[in-house]
Amino acid sequence: MNVDFVNPFLDALLNVLATMASTKATFGRPCIKTDNKSMGDITGIIGMAGEKTKGSLAISFSEGAILHITSQMLGEQVLKIDETVVDMVGEITNMVTGGAKKELAKQGYKFEMALPTMVTGKGHIITHKTAGAIIVIPFRINKGEFFVEVCFNK
Amino acid sequence: MNVDFVNPFLDALLNVLATMASTKATFGRPCIKTDNKSMGDITGIIGMAGEKTKGSLAISFSEGAILHITSQMLGEQVLKIDETVVDMVGEITNMVTGGAKKELAKQGYKFEMALPTMVTGKGHIITHKTAGAIIVIPFRINKGEFFVEVCFNK
Repeated sequence: MNVDFVNPFLDALLNVLATMASTKATFGRPCIKTDNKSMGDITGIIGMAGEKTKGSLAISFSEGAILHITSQMLGEQVLKIDETVVDMVGEITNMVTGGAKKELAKQGYKFEMALPTMVTGKGHIITHKTAGAIIVIPFRINKGEFFVEVCFNK
Repeated sequence: MNVDFVNPFLDALLNVLATMASTKATFGRPCIKTDNKSMGDITGIIGMAGEKTKGSLAISFSEGAILHITSQMLGEQVLKIDETVVDMVGEITNMVTGGAKKELAKQGYKFEMALPTMVTGKGHIITHKTAGAIIVIPFRINKGEFFVEVCFNK
């Protein structure tokens, strides 16, 4: 998978966090996922599908990270992963993918977005089914870490 | 959401289990999901996206159910949820959605399939982000239960 596919997701996520949650995240070097070690407490998953381009995106948050981000977005302190947090993860997943979709369309990679699905459960593990590479970008805010995983079929 | 959307997934799943795993499943009445009570130990999730039709499918298996199904598919006893089982859940998710896609296209609902994503983690919970209804179909084999959840944007 071309790294050109990854930067639009990275940029969109930083942009969503900055504008919606006044949160500045630092990120590590995007790398190819070779095992299943990135775990999350809540994950947003969305499919991307076009005639030639098929993919999936997962954003896996630790509890600390998503409680901080949701609290910032809502302007009130959120203390546990509840329905509001789950819905917010869906919103973030949609916004990040929507932002990346526009950029990727300019590069000739066109796809439609499916509906987001959210997973909750302490320390669950995400795996993708693809013949292509799975790229992981680790992010950190001072309240915890989260991971973006992107894969496409080529 | 029209129930016409659901039957192709139900038929495809029964067909996949019968032909690939020599397993006959019984199923309960499809119902609208009003809470998040269906939990699984391993789930396959896939997005569906077309110009007008957007959706997502999740198949959540209990450990007992997926170990039996995978053992039947491979012809050898599988005792724990490992990489092979995770991959098999991705295959099943692909096959069920591929089967349903053909039927739904005949009815004028056209979409492309995204790449499947698999989630492992004891008792995780799946939620969908949609303005439409989420339909749940409960299935049972003698080794355990599993759930299919389908939603579309209309």
